[in-house]
Amino acid sequence: MSNIQVSLNKTKKEIESVGITDNIALSDDEESIVIIDQVKIPNSLEYKKITDLQSAYQAIKKLEVRGAPAIGIFAGYTMYMLARRNKDLSYEDFLARFKADKEYLNSSRPTAVNLSWALNRMEKVVTENREEGVSAIVEKLKEEAFAIHNEDIEMCLKICEYGLSLLKDGDGVLTHCNAGPLATSYGTAQGPFLLAKARGMNIRVFADETRPLLQGARLTSFELSRAGVDVTLICDNMASIVMKNGWINACFVGCDRIAANGDVANKIGTSGVAILAKHYGIPVYSLGPTSTVDMNCPDGDHIKIELRDPDEIRTMWYEKPMAPAGVKCYNPSFDVTDHSLLSGIVTEKGIIYPPFDVNLKKLFNEDH
Amino acid sequence: MSNIQVSLNKTKKEIESVGITDNIALSDDEESIVIIDQVKIPNSLEYKKITDLQSAYQAIKKLEVRGAPAIGIFAGYTMYMLARRNKDLSYEDFLARFKADKEYLNSSRPTAVNLSWALNRMEKVVTENREEGVSAIVEKLKEEAFAIHNEDIEMCLKICEYGLSLLKDGDGVLTHCNAGPLATSYGTAQGPFLLAKARGMNIRVFADETRPLLQGARLTSFELSRAGVDVTLICDNMASIVMKNGWINACFVGCDRIAANGDVANKIGTSGVAILAKHYGIPVYSLGPTSTVDMNCPDGDHIKIELRDPDEIRTMWYEKPMAPAGVKCYNPSFDVTDHSLLSGIVTEKGIIYPPFDVNLKKLFNEDH
Repeated sequence: MSNIQVSLNKTKKEIESVGITDNIALSDDEESIVIIDQVKIPNSLEYKKITDLQSAYQAIKKLEVRGAPAIGIFAGYTMYMLARRNKDLSYEDFLARFKADKEYLNSSRPTAVNLSWALNRMEKVVTENREEGVSAIVEKLKEEAFAIHNEDIEMCLKICEYGLSLLKDGDGVLTHCNAGPLATSYGTAQGPFLLAKARGMNIRVFADETRPLLQGARLTSFELSRAGVDVTLICDNMASIVMKNGWINACFVGCDRIAANGDVANKIGTSGVAILAKHYGIPVYSLGPTSTVDMNCPDGDHIKIELRDPDEIRTMWYEKPMAPAGVKCYNPSFDVTDHSLLSGIVTEKGIIYPPFDVNLKKLFNEDH
Repeated sequence: MSNIQVSLNKTKKEIESVGITDNIALSDDEESIVIIDQVKIPNSLEYKKITDLQSAYQAIKKLEVRGAPAIGIFAGYTMYMLARRNKDLSYEDFLARFKADKEYLNSSRPTAVNLSWALNRMEKVVTENREEGVSAIVEKLKEEAFAIHNEDIEMCLKICEYGLSLLKDGDGVLTHCNAGPLATSYGTAQGPFLLAKARGMNIRVFADETRPLLQGARLTSFELSRAGVDVTLICDNMASIVMKNGWINACFVGCDRIAANGDVANKIGTSGVAILAKHYGIPVYSLGPTSTVDMNCPDGDHIKIELRDPDEIRTMWYEKPMAPAGVKCYNPSFDVTDHSLLSGIVTEKGIIYPPFDVNLKKLFNEDH
């Protein structure tokens, strides 16, 4: 891993040379946060200034900012931007205002774990540094916001390097959903394709459109085609034929939660991709940070599957409804891929191979 | 099979009691054909009168009439409706007019095999009965048009019976695309669900939405929910999780073409369904008429896959484009399911089991 660490700055510049990596930035005057409005993608790339709590709330709620890590980064900068305007307040008033703002922002998307995680991290800075005074606290909040962002970047860069080490020039890779720089600062599951492009490698990517929310069509094919990566968009039900055609050497998918035995919860459809790949003898890798590993969760059966609004299937995006009004739908947001279907889990700490239960335990024990 | 044949009239009435089986009918005065406008489905069920060649051409071209068998039935009635208006012409003038009308109607959807098949069948009546005179020919055209329709109905009813024999009360069945009464007079792959409903059986159907053309969402879930069948609409990438949940006892899919070894070409995504089913130990049946078996085609590798317009993936149905303009897409209209993944092929002549190469040959030899 030492090779990778010394060259991370080079990796960062390489991904910046092809990818859209400026999706969230604190402005120079620190009075606003400039985001890429993801709602406008894929039809246009537009930057938007967020200058107050209300518009920050709306940006998350309306999915102008989306992707778990991106939401966390945005929340950090937002709390700093707001806090610095209150630096003349007493600590008590400052804290009360901070808590109210935090609570309101958190309600913009209550199920986003990274949102509350980042907000709690910022709040801890306020409560743990009471004696230092409000001005010093505001400075520390700035450091914390940048730390949240920089840690995510470093994690992404390492995953990009480890992921790319699994590919060779000319490979075809099937990917599902979106975990590129728009969602995750520098990309996890799709980051290696950008790095490959920057290094002159030709990787042919096949992107599942990923119904019902179409993250693959709207975001992945947008990010990759803009970077000059050879990307082909397919419907989810075409994964089998592209594998049968001999076009796929590996599958790269993300992860939302990893159980202690290596079972991976990820965007709905991931388990199907993995079963097809096994049938055709193609390796499958799940890419994501070790923070998604939950050693307290023994296996995938213990992961609760969130069910979403049927109208995402029946009416969303469409000119007119594409299914009968009120027809029953089953709309799980993710599924669990059995660890037996995975060739490896690519994390910022390296690639974990089977047996996953043993090797995940080893990884976490080494940490402590 | 004798049991099935004696009771076909009962089967017909049963399916009529729940399903929409009047999608194409010659009016009593024979001056028009009344169709269900399939473009309006799933948002409304509207009947439309077709009274001339031009509107018949448009009905096929605009997909107001769709489904291979339905198009053939419609073409037969159309040629009869037009011919009876010309019964005072000389044979030469009648034939010239017939051929011109036929050629024009055929150009409405040149790739639809059933369209040219039905039109050729009607033309043969005209050319083989020259000596009988135009009036008699017109009567024979009427008989032929009804024969095309009735043969399709009989084929469907038998497939419905054989298909249903594979199911038991309470079963869950996953299906893909649409092959119900709207497309095939009384239904093939989805017909057994209607028959089950009419007989008071509870079959829980999971319908893949079937991207990009959404036949499962627009048509299958419409037909089945209207019939009172317990149908749940899912995105194609949710087939794996519903199987994993233990909800599926069998998969019923259609067939566009069957090779001599039992490989089945059907709507894109069918092969993926079959591979997932094999992984989970669930039987897969392909349902369709023996007319789709091509004994001159040795296996699936000899079936050419039609590629369709990328905008079916990028923009069709949507309020605004859901993929970047010009992004490369791969859009095959169907895929080939390897015969090793099939438990049986359900035809109007019975259920064919493995070894398919041997048993298909036997079936066709018995015919001659």
